[in-house]
Amino acid sequence: MVSGRNLGSTGKLRYGMVGGGRDAFIGAVHRMAAALDGQADFVAAALSSTPEKSIASGRDLGLPDDRNYTSWQDMLAGELRRAPGDRIDFVSIVTPNHVHFPVARAFAEAGIHVVLDKPMVLSSLEASQLVTAVEKSGVVFAVTYNYTGYPMVKQAAHLVRSGAIGQVRKVFVEYHQGWLSSKLEDSGQKQASWRTDPKRSGIAGCVGDIGTHAENLVHTITGLDIDELCADVTTFVEGRALDDDAAVLMRFRGGAKGTLTCSQVCYGEENGLAIRVYGTSGGLAWKQEEPNFLTYTPADGAKRILKPGGPESGAGAHAVRLPPGHPEAFIEAFANVYRGAIAAIRARQEGGKLTGLGAEYPTVYDGARGVRFVERVIESGRQGGVWVKF
Amino acid sequence: MVSGRNLGSTGKLRYGMVGGGRDAFIGAVHRMAAALDGQADFVAAALSSTPEKSIASGRDLGLPDDRNYTSWQDMLAGELRRAPGDRIDFVSIVTPNHVHFPVARAFAEAGIHVVLDKPMVLSSLEASQLVTAVEKSGVVFAVTYNYTGYPMVKQAAHLVRSGAIGQVRKVFVEYHQGWLSSKLEDSGQKQASWRTDPKRSGIAGCVGDIGTHAENLVHTITGLDIDELCADVTTFVEGRALDDDAAVLMRFRGGAKGTLTCSQVCYGEENGLAIRVYGTSGGLAWKQEEPNFLTYTPADGAKRILKPGGPESGAGAHAVRLPPGHPEAFIEAFANVYRGAIAAIRARQEGGKLTGLGAEYPTVYDGARGVRFVERVIESGRQGGVWVKF
Amino acid sequence: MVSGRNLGSTGKLRYGMVGGGRDAFIGAVHRMAAALDGQADFVAAALSSTPEKSIASGRDLGLPDDRNYTSWQDMLAGELRRAPGDRIDFVSIVTPNHVHFPVARAFAEAGIHVVLDKPMVLSSLEASQLVTAVEKSGVVFAVTYNYTGYPMVKQAAHLVRSGAIGQVRKVFVEYHQGWLSSKLEDSGQKQASWRTDPKRSGIAGCVGDIGTHAENLVHTITGLDIDELCADVTTFVEGRALDDDAAVLMRFRGGAKGTLTCSQVCYGEENGLAIRVYGTSGGLAWKQEEPNFLTYTPADGAKRILKPGGPESGAGAHAVRLPPGHPEAFIEAFANVYRGAIAAIRARQEGGKLTGLGAEYPTVYDGARGVRFVERVIESGRQGGVWVKF
Amino acid sequence: MVSGRNLGSTGKLRYGMVGGGRDAFIGAVHRMAAALDGQADFVAAALSSTPEKSIASGRDLGLPDDRNYTSWQDMLAGELRRAPGDRIDFVSIVTPNHVHFPVARAFAEAGIHVVLDKPMVLSSLEASQLVTAVEKSGVVFAVTYNYTGYPMVKQAAHLVRSGAIGQVRKVFVEYHQGWLSSKLEDSGQKQASWRTDPKRSGIAGCVGDIGTHAENLVHTITGLDIDELCADVTTFVEGRALDDDAAVLMRFRGGAKGTLTCSQVCYGEENGLAIRVYGTSGGLAWKQEEPNFLTYTPADGAKRILKPGGPESGAGAHAVRLPPGHPEAFIEAFANVYRGAIAAIRARQEGGKLTGLGAEYPTVYDGARGVRFVERVIESGRQGGVWVKF
Repeated sequence: MVSGRNLGSTGKLRYGMVGGGRDAFIGAVHRMAAALDGQADFVAAALSSTPEKSIASGRDLGLPDDRNYTSWQDMLAGELRRAPGDRIDFVSIVTPNHVHFPVARAFAEAGIHVVLDKPMVLSSLEASQLVTAVEKSGVVFAVTYNYTGYPMVKQAAHLVRSGAIGQVRKVFVEYHQGWLSSKLEDSGQKQASWRTDPKRSGIAGCVGDIGTHAENLVHTITGLDIDELCADVTTFVEGRALDDDAAVLMRFRGGAKGTLTCSQVCYGEENGLAIRVYGTSGGLAWKQEEPNFLTYTPADGAKRILKPGGPESGAGAHAVRLPPGHPEAFIEAFANVYRGAIAAIRARQEGGKLTGLGAEYPTVYDGARGVRFVERVIESGRQGGVWVKF
Repeated sequence: MVSGRNLGSTGKLRYGMVGGGRDAFIGAVHRMAAALDGQADFVAAALSSTPEKSIASGRDLGLPDDRNYTSWQDMLAGELRRAPGDRIDFVSIVTPNHVHFPVARAFAEAGIHVVLDKPMVLSSLEASQLVTAVEKSGVVFAVTYNYTGYPMVKQAAHLVRSGAIGQVRKVFVEYHQGWLSSKLEDSGQKQASWRTDPKRSGIAGCVGDIGTHAENLVHTITGLDIDELCADVTTFVEGRALDDDAAVLMRFRGGAKGTLTCSQVCYGEENGLAIRVYGTSGGLAWKQEEPNFLTYTPADGAKRILKPGGPESGAGAHAVRLPPGHPEAFIEAFANVYRGAIAAIRARQEGGKLTGLGAEYPTVYDGARGVRFVERVIESGRQGGVWVKF
Repeated sequence: MVSGRNLGSTGKLRYGMVGGGRDAFIGAVHRMAAALDGQADFVAAALSSTPEKSIASGRDLGLPDDRNYTSWQDMLAGELRRAPGDRIDFVSIVTPNHVHFPVARAFAEAGIHVVLDKPMVLSSLEASQLVTAVEKSGVVFAVTYNYTGYPMVKQAAHLVRSGAIGQVRKVFVEYHQGWLSSKLEDSGQKQASWRTDPKRSGIAGCVGDIGTHAENLVHTITGLDIDELCADVTTFVEGRALDDDAAVLMRFRGGAKGTLTCSQVCYGEENGLAIRVYGTSGGLAWKQEEPNFLTYTPADGAKRILKPGGPESGAGAHAVRLPPGHPEAFIEAFANVYRGAIAAIRARQEGGKLTGLGAEYPTVYDGARGVRFVERVIESGRQGGVWVKF
Repeated sequence: MVSGRNLGSTGKLRYGMVGGGRDAFIGAVHRMAAALDGQADFVAAALSSTPEKSIASGRDLGLPDDRNYTSWQDMLAGELRRAPGDRIDFVSIVTPNHVHFPVARAFAEAGIHVVLDKPMVLSSLEASQLVTAVEKSGVVFAVTYNYTGYPMVKQAAHLVRSGAIGQVRKVFVEYHQGWLSSKLEDSGQKQASWRTDPKRSGIAGCVGDIGTHAENLVHTITGLDIDELCADVTTFVEGRALDDDAAVLMRFRGGAKGTLTCSQVCYGEENGLAIRVYGTSGGLAWKQEEPNFLTYTPADGAKRILKPGGPESGAGAHAVRLPPGHPEAFIEAFANVYRGAIAAIRARQEGGKLTGLGAEYPTVYDGARGVRFVERVIESGRQGGVWVKF
């Protein structure tokens, strides 16, 4: 059961949000991403697990009182009471990880499309139940692996798939940060607190927070599936309850190999997601902090620097809003995930299918694979760093 | 006469737009910039000089028919007919240059706040009339020298003003593009057409389109005023009606000197605005295409790389929306100009004054100085490259 | 037994060479490195395993006939027949790997100082025999881990040892090349042929050729000793007899961890040795292809770019020949290893000890540790990637 | 009259040096450059204007007493007394500028080949007399515009001449340093003292020291001749006797234009020589501090990064000593000028002409043009910044 078509193709969708109140970080990013292209209006929310904070946060954001809910359960019920053409088209779920599963499943089962932050859920069991729910209800279900939205990531994926670097042999991916180099969670800083807390983050810290982005980036660009992996998982900061560093050797199906490193104890690194891919006839490199530059080296030629909208960069052009040299960045990439999900929702509402570029957003299957990745890395690490099947 | 206060401090302003219809580039940027922070709703427009195109463009954007005007005159009259609390709070003017003056003056005189694209107007005579109109009406009047909105530009300005590099001696500023290396205007490309057409762009091509941004950046960061300048102004592409390149020697009041080069015939450059400032105790460098990196070298120390929200970068922190390492770029910087103007409009509506960080947007005086700069550069060039007083 | 003092402190030493004839690469580098500072004259050689080629190569280089030997055995005998003050002070051994051991041992046992290319020998057994020989004869024995000679590597080592980044937690080192991405050895290219041939290179290809440099760089900068490692060793190019890629997880004594990756199938990489080190109060990064830039980030400050001879870079200053901004590179770094060895030889000849900066060259112990590293990586790889003790 | 052939084609030339004693900087660079390729032996010198210092410096360098001269006049006479096959083949002159002319003329007139530091002489009058002397004697006369020796500069020149960027329209060249930002000459620092002293440096400071390198680089890469120029010449540091900054607008014969800026008051810049060239079908950029990277953008393609010995970089390959990715730098580039001069000397000695690559060293005509450049810039500056014919 999918909610009915609310708007014409040029009108805006309406969305609600669960989580993302005062002091939250990622909720505001979702709202900016949804606002950027003028395709969705923020009309309802349950912004916090604390009713008072929910209400206050909603007022900050100008929500009308009747859709400024005190819990996600109330919000779901309230929206379902509205006429199909008057209720939210989709919900953005931006809570700490442990709340993802019940909320996402409930909205999906109610036929409301879902945009959900990563990691999708806390276990493969939850993931498979969610997959089932989504398949049954038929909703659009996007997981915000937001780095997939960068034009140069799309260009990289195109180059790999079009054979520009031949068959992939080797992948190096890394996601290095420094902000948890000291025990920041003891200071009460909200982001550090929940991300290092097993109750809210699950079995993994760094691996679930950023390692999963790295795995997703590899899959997005190369399409490779991990066959087995061997991980050394570490907690460097004394007293921290979850890992803050991991190094993973990966063997992909088909013979390619790779390393994935993620760490939050690297002073001087801020948000250092970077990938390099080498094949039988070329190589690629991209860094998130300089997202508008993709280097591509063909087997017999000099290194090229590809840029959004520039020469030899056509594959990501539809994801660019500005002329060459006018840099776009994190929020625009995030908005591209929203664009993809909104296009899919509209296609669904209009009873048809996505044509053209297809579904350009990470799906429930990407989310499930990401959860599996976290589990297998942690399992390998628990055993002291042995090879485990994916 | 200023329009009354429409909304509480947490509510949204309402704005209209003149120009920016189908095929336009900068109008969409203004709309994204205004939308990003959720502080302004787009409610009215006269999007084109052609009535049919205006209407069609407005429908694309979901405007209601009664505020989808066919001309800016109708729009001004229509909005003034609405109750003060129901009309637009401000207008964004994004037409080709030759239309800036009549529209801006009319809205300003009507007491409607104005956000206007650069260059402000076509002559110093128009500029002085506009200054008079703005001073008389008391409206907030922002000129979108958008590069001032980058956090690292704000940090650079702070470093200069706080004495971190001592007294400024030398400035190198450049704005190099390559997109007009061939006679693109002959292809009918809209951007190339009006920017190389004296009827729509005025006396200058490259100098007015991008040189004026470079002058503004120098002033924003250093506060220096040009005393005299000597310019070599060139049209490299045969048959082009306006300049596509200029090199300017500048002598500032107080003894500092500088060079400003702008060009649109530099293959390989996309939007290469860059500045370097050297003083008696340090130096600074910044590039627009890598906007999140500001290098600062103190007299006795190693070069530092300052980043938004990072260590030693506090001065631009209020202009940052994301944690360190999550890059923000052109649209966010543009949105910061809107933030500054909206804050000023709200302060004006509430009868008070801006406190705290002050007016963080380029004003009518910046606009007037920019027009003067264009005139003096073109005058020097016409005389074969002689020194002219500013 | 050490050969007598030939020259005063301002005179030049005399050296001979084994290997390095026509078509060789590294022999010419050794000769340039020895010549650069005017401290050593090239006076004797056995330049090839083929007598005819030896003679022809020696004539190319202007060697007198009586010291242009046809074999290293002849050269050793011939030099020993000369009066102590007339014979070579040291020998540079630049043969393929499998010849290192007999030559180095013979010259060391004869009391002639040795400069030897890496990897030192083919097995830990040979290494321990060589250590014994060197300890017994008392010769200076330098292994040309040439990347240790870069001023910014010396600065990095200084920063770690002086506590600037606190206790080291994490090391990422990589050495990526692309030149063996196809089966170049089939073309008869000399470098590719012997480096992929077990008879001449030993048990390892990529790991021995470049992986060992990476291990040495880690030790040079951090002083860390590997406690155990886990390696995935791969031959990507079909039909190649040795590895061309490896990824190694490392656990150091004291709790630090690291990854080391080396590969010769990375199109677009030329000689990509790079290291990053993170500690409890800062981080460092350096890349061999841009050797004059070392980035250093203290816990509470912005990233600094240190350069040779520049501010905050004093520790490497003695290894710099030119003023700041005049880049030095590979040959100069190589020459710094020779400088260190020559200073030690002179000190030995003068009966004294090195004072001041101490022995700034990699020793026989570094060489032995490098051989051990290669063995343990290959062993781990052979077992499918298990943890092995170092 | 040219000195006879001393050595076979594989033997070494013999050279002497004037200037370059203790405390000097550039003399040591010349000696390293000459030594690097093993093609020239340093056998004679008059190393200082002070006899005692000459002798002491020569002993430091291991010169035999009978060729360790106390003045250049003695050296010239002494060498001429030796048999033709026993005297120096060429002289390297590395004195302060004011001594260049008499020494260079005397050796050239005596038929001894000359390598001379830039700027060649102090006036165009001296330059024309020197040109006459060189033409009359037929000696090889190289002026060490050393930056011409970089492989990527050779590649850039090749790209321009082969039409890869079409007809040149625009050149930006800069040479920015910071070391004279304060009045270093007051500290007695030798380099600062003579370079800011009109008696030893002539009419120009910064312009003669580094501006002339920039002019030469433009000519080397583009072949363009300046038709007229307009310069703003400044002394920023109070009490300094010569200029420390200049900005020059240039109009080349044929219609191209350019800017040249040189400055020694730019904190944070060390040896910042950089050039960008744009033509009707492409663009180029190169920086001296990262000399192994040349960016090239064709009209319709992405930016390429060319590297020495790498793909698409064949034109500079003969100037490279190492495999790709093994960086060469300042000394190697300097040595390439020596290589070119030595090849020419050998060809001259063998009675033939240079074949193949031709004379790859800057000649007396380059030197004369450089002197003229300095004069015209200073003249324009003295008149307040007017256009002067070249």
